[in-house]
Amino acid sequence: MSTLASLVTPSALIDETRMMRNISRMQDRMNALGMRLRPHVKTSKCVEVARRQLGQGARGITVSTLKEAECFFAAGFNDILYAACIPPSKVDRALALRRRGCDLTVIVDSMEAARSLAETGRANAHAFDVMIEIDSDGHRSGVRAGDRLLIDIARELTAGGANLKGVLTHAGSSYDLNTSDSLEQLAEQERREIVAAAEQLRAAGFPCPEVSVGSTPTALSATNLPGVTEVRAGVYVFFDLVMSNVGVCTPQDIALSVLTTVIGHQAEKGWVIVDAGWMAMSRDRGTAKQALDYGYGAVCDVHGDMISGYSVAAANQEHGIISHGGGSSDRDVAERFPIGSLLRILPNHACATGAQHGEYCLVDGQGQISRWTRFNGW
Amino acid sequence: MSTLASLVTPSALIDETRMMRNISRMQDRMNALGMRLRPHVKTSKCVEVARRQLGQGARGITVSTLKEAECFFAAGFNDILYAACIPPSKVDRALALRRRGCDLTVIVDSMEAARSLAETGRANAHAFDVMIEIDSDGHRSGVRAGDRLLIDIARELTAGGANLKGVLTHAGSSYDLNTSDSLEQLAEQERREIVAAAEQLRAAGFPCPEVSVGSTPTALSATNLPGVTEVRAGVYVFFDLVMSNVGVCTPQDIALSVLTTVIGHQAEKGWVIVDAGWMAMSRDRGTAKQALDYGYGAVCDVHGDMISGYSVAAANQEHGIISHGGGSSDRDVAERFPIGSLLRILPNHACATGAQHGEYCLVDGQGQISRWTRFNGW
Repeated sequence: MSTLASLVTPSALIDETRMMRNISRMQDRMNALGMRLRPHVKTSKCVEVARRQLGQGARGITVSTLKEAECFFAAGFNDILYAACIPPSKVDRALALRRRGCDLTVIVDSMEAARSLAETGRANAHAFDVMIEIDSDGHRSGVRAGDRLLIDIARELTAGGANLKGVLTHAGSSYDLNTSDSLEQLAEQERREIVAAAEQLRAAGFPCPEVSVGSTPTALSATNLPGVTEVRAGVYVFFDLVMSNVGVCTPQDIALSVLTTVIGHQAEKGWVIVDAGWMAMSRDRGTAKQALDYGYGAVCDVHGDMISGYSVAAANQEHGIISHGGGSSDRDVAERFPIGSLLRILPNHACATGAQHGEYCLVDGQGQISRWTRFNGW
Repeated sequence: MSTLASLVTPSALIDETRMMRNISRMQDRMNALGMRLRPHVKTSKCVEVARRQLGQGARGITVSTLKEAECFFAAGFNDILYAACIPPSKVDRALALRRRGCDLTVIVDSMEAARSLAETGRANAHAFDVMIEIDSDGHRSGVRAGDRLLIDIARELTAGGANLKGVLTHAGSSYDLNTSDSLEQLAEQERREIVAAAEQLRAAGFPCPEVSVGSTPTALSATNLPGVTEVRAGVYVFFDLVMSNVGVCTPQDIALSVLTTVIGHQAEKGWVIVDAGWMAMSRDRGTAKQALDYGYGAVCDVHGDMISGYSVAAANQEHGIISHGGGSSDRDVAERFPIGSLLRILPNHACATGAQHGEYCLVDGQGQISRWTRFNGW
């Protein structure tokens, strides 16, 4: 592992073996279900990662910002779904992307957004590809299946300036679950609601070729998806401690970690001070309300093997405080974790931790390191 | 405010009038106390912001990473204190900066770090400028005043390869307080502990010219600082909702906000969906355990005036959910906050929210906008 010692700490590491296993696992599952997989690249914001997802069989990508759409389009990705409702102020930027040849699909869940999109389309002799967001679990955005607003939006879109491509939903409340039964039930609810919305549109005479669902927990828990055409999922590519607590991976599947250096101790308290604070880990405390609370991350040795019981119990901007959760006095921490030694920290939430970094260091099976750029911003 | 409407949302805004008032307030206080002010630039990581702090009388800067030291040195800043204990692996980088002419001071709180620094200094016929970190409140790093480790470290440093410049401390536990009495007491404790450490060193025959304290709450609460030579503080330049709850500013002092666009509603729940999620605000929930919990931020109109009772109650990566904390049904949100309208969100923690952005949009007193780069990374 001598190459790791040459890295500036903190650094975001990707374990390539784990990542490729995660990609294959999701792709195999989607293949078995007969689903097209459209990964959400907001997790990595990294062209090299997304290329590997497509290389294993994914088709198209999902993005969370127009900046992502522009960056991935510039890198040769063409089939892009922008999965946040587009406000009027962003329609011109979407139009510019489409005119440059990007097969960009946008989404709406309101009359106002549908109207601004259709009007801009008509004014520019253009037809946007649009999906309507459906609310399948009450956690955020979307129109409820059965609401006549769905028909009103479809009518607005199909009056010119837009093609109605279908419906999509995201059962984000899956992050709050932790049993396979409840996950399977939510996956079925997600499917049932979106299919009901699609049928409502078709019964009213509107086209609805695409029916898109997805979240990593429901994607990995669905047993059968009749009526669905595509699944979106993001965090599976790295996984994280929140997903481990949800029950869809183990900590040994987590492909993203932060390399850190021990910079001090408070031995009588059993504290190890490291240079990975919240700036490196993010402020995400997603495991705080779950069965196992990992603080700001779970502690591994430099090879990525968990050191049982240790977590980053507290974090300041550039300081993490590692301690043993068991309440043992642990006064030998200075000997066990000498100053200058390297550790890896597994993240609560891979999307949030990745976002704190401008690049990833990919560690391959031989311990060789490559640098992969990621981007942020809007 | 027509220029704000041209910005991509979310964007990080700095209200120049408020920022300059915050800078003057701290500088005036330090002048009255006879203290040198060395602002911590980790809050802004922005050369233009730090220039204004020095322009009002600050002398030197404090940084949290060597990347900051390198970037600020490249921009013409010379007197730089790197205020996180330096591990052996970072000593060469500090040496390179010093050899290029940077007046960089580093800190240690262990024999191991002191030894590696001194040995590198001797091996390179160089003498590092070093301060010893003192633990004045038990919240993180540092040697306790009275501990003979302090003398051992001083002896190691002064055996060649380093100049012992003094001692520094940071009473970070001030963030947990919320009364002027308790803050004043902690400021005095911070002063008392660091002065005791300085006297311990001097009594043992070591030099200790610099005695540096600081946190924004204690800096604004200290009434008298005999024995102290310098104060460090960071977040005061912007302030934030955590500081408002601590009681050292009001929400009307907060100079940093995030401009956001309304992208949807769930009217029956009283929800307004905006495009500022945790990617724009950070995951910081610092107000969660304080008297007033602002969720992921307090909601203001586009001019920056608070809309009482509304906060970003929940956040996903690119979605914020605004609701009224009072439990009112509030079903007219779609009319009050139409799709496409702009709002500003005040942050819980300015350091964390700033870190989510690659640039600031400075809004001057006439509403004109300038773009200021900030940097992240290590």
